[in-house]
Amino acid sequence: MNETTDQYDRVIIGIDPGTNVMGYGILGVKRKRPSMIALGVIKLSKFDDHYMRLHRIFERVLGLVEQYLPDEMAIESPFYGKNVQSMLKLGRAQGVAMAAALHRDVPIAEYAPLKIKMAITGNGGASKEQVAEMLRRILNIPQDQMPDLLDATDALAAALCHFYESSRPQSQSSCRSWKEFIATHPDKLKR
Amino acid sequence: MNETTDQYDRVIIGIDPGTNVMGYGILGVKRKRPSMIALGVIKLSKFDDHYMRLHRIFERVLGLVEQYLPDEMAIESPFYGKNVQSMLKLGRAQGVAMAAALHRDVPIAEYAPLKIKMAITGNGGASKEQVAEMLRRILNIPQDQMPDLLDATDALAAALCHFYESSRPQSQSSCRSWKEFIATHPDKLKR
Repeated sequence: MNETTDQYDRVIIGIDPGTNVMGYGILGVKRKRPSMIALGVIKLSKFDDHYMRLHRIFERVLGLVEQYLPDEMAIESPFYGKNVQSMLKLGRAQGVAMAAALHRDVPIAEYAPLKIKMAITGNGGASKEQVAEMLRRILNIPQDQMPDLLDATDALAAALCHFYESSRPQSQSSCRSWKEFIATHPDKLKR
Repeated sequence: MNETTDQYDRVIIGIDPGTNVMGYGILGVKRKRPSMIALGVIKLSKFDDHYMRLHRIFERVLGLVEQYLPDEMAIESPFYGKNVQSMLKLGRAQGVAMAAALHRDVPIAEYAPLKIKMAITGNGGASKEQVAEMLRRILNIPQDQMPDLLDATDALAAALCHFYESSRPQSQSSCRSWKEFIATHPDKLKR
């Protein structure tokens, strides 16, 4: 048993992957109420070497999984990007973070940034600051415990979005992946 | 010590990543002569679930690393692609394969497909069949031991390309990454 998380009914690790900074947030659920367990960033810009960055992501995410024993991983993932080069790099960063979860049999769910913003603030165009402030209120986080690390709050937002999504299976949750959207709205697809 | 590879001075694992099939080839070097140790594919198309595929890649590549104890990993990687969606998926497949190597402290080198073809056949436009036939001759592989799996021979070609590249540090090897090319030819860059 892990001292830090065995009091929770459910633990979700949220990840906001990037090749310069990777954010993470650990969400605990007790009697259906979510709360923040941990929030932080893995700084990668100090490593010049691309593989050193990937190695660090893998080892740190594996460490978080082993420390907090999450039941699920929620990942923020865009479904499009600026160019193929940046998407390949982002894919690699996501891949190594996912490998750390899969290696410990932690299932993964992913959500588009717009859907996460919608789920947390009700506005898909919300700024990172607005998402952070809303998270602080929802999870009752004291201001001084809220680090000024917007990559970390985005990760916690992904975890909370997943909690909402998986707790309300009957509802028309706003927090869905494109795959689900297409599956439920085949008429919206251009043929 | 591992029975299968402790007779070699150096072992290189070549990987040709993909989301439907991942090829691998294990190259052994004894007294500066390369030979084939193993060749195979990891079939992924039987899994509908994207994460199941990534999980399988990680576990299988980690298994190969633990079985053959390679000193290095060589990976075939395009530097451009059809679209951002396919590059994100490819990046994830590469990322989980890389994570398996990095987790066991195996350094990684990557080469563009064109550079690998050039190194093996002398022709950057060579077909997969031509690469496979050339590999068969260079490594003296009996015809019946050469499986009709072109994804696997591409992986072995990546390993052999890396062997050539790392054995001839002084030469103008044709098997270089774009990063190296740009570093040595700054004048070729559009500003």
